[in-house]
Amino acid sequence: MDELKPFVTGIDHVGIAVPDMDEAIAFYRDVLGLELYHEETNESQGVREAMMRAPGDTGGTAVQLLAPLGPDTTIGKFLARRGPGVQQVAYRVTDIDAATDALRAKGLRVMFEESGIGTAESRVNFLHPKDAGGVLIELVEPAVPPR
Amino acid sequence: MDELKPFVTGIDHVGIAVPDMDEAIAFYRDVLGLELYHEETNESQGVREAMMRAPGDTGGTAVQLLAPLGPDTTIGKFLARRGPGVQQVAYRVTDIDAATDALRAKGLRVMFEESGIGTAESRVNFLHPKDAGGVLIELVEPAVPPR
Ligand SMILES: [Co+2]
Ligand SMILES: [Co+2]
Repeated sequence: MDELKPFVTGIDHVGIAVPDMDEAIAFYRDVLGLELYHEETNESQGVREAMMRAPGDTGGTAVQLLAPLGPDTTIGKFLARRGPGVQQVAYRVTDIDAATDALRAKGLRVMFEESGIGTAESRVNFLHPKDAGGVLIELVEPAVPPR
Repeated sequence: MDELKPFVTGIDHVGIAVPDMDEAIAFYRDVLGLELYHEETNESQGVREAMMRAPGDTGGTAVQLLAPLGPDTTIGKFLARRGPGVQQVAYRVTDIDAATDALRAKGLRVMFEESGIGTAESRVNFLHPKDAGGVLIELVEPAVPPR
């Protein structure tokens, strides 16, 4: 019970699949008033990413906009199947190796044998949605203390 | 531009539609290590709600589990149509009347004329998903300063 309790410190980000990144950034900036604080392209994951947060919400939960680099990527396929919307919920952990080991020890399906590289050099892995009530749950260990 | 910037302070919660509340609470407690800090039944919205957060993440973004009181409710219909998963993303605002007025002034569709009562006596309203990139966005003005 509670194996992950020592590791999970909060919700790092909510990942939203968007067909058009510039339009999505404009919506979250001009309508919701969020601020863009990081952008990157992850070629290996086939995705362009933008991290946005409410002004002053330092260290708080971010919106992570995810735009596909092509139709044959994770986000491209998600958009084709489900349309735009929330694609993942990411929890911040202090130790991703210990956390994923604890999940495996419970018999849950962790998607990658080894954790991959996520936004801003973080280390990430995923719990299979079938083992998580239909939600794609990401675990993320930041490379640097969260801003 | 940025009309909501003075009002939005962060992501209040991520709302997840679940078919079985007890099972969902057990998952988020026993697997992710979150703590249950509030539960209520909202008869008028036809939903049972549970708020959960990482230990020590006071004031941070919560998981809001949403279980339908029957099939003919918002969450009941969502589950029938989409299956379990993220149903809404809720942003905390300091003044929901000013925030919804600002959205209407931009020509965006706010779902209710008057804000309704959400979790823990908060005041809530919603932006139509068609005006928000497929995401159901809730605005929530807490009744008391968030714990
Ligand atoms: Co992510
Ligand atoms: Co809500």
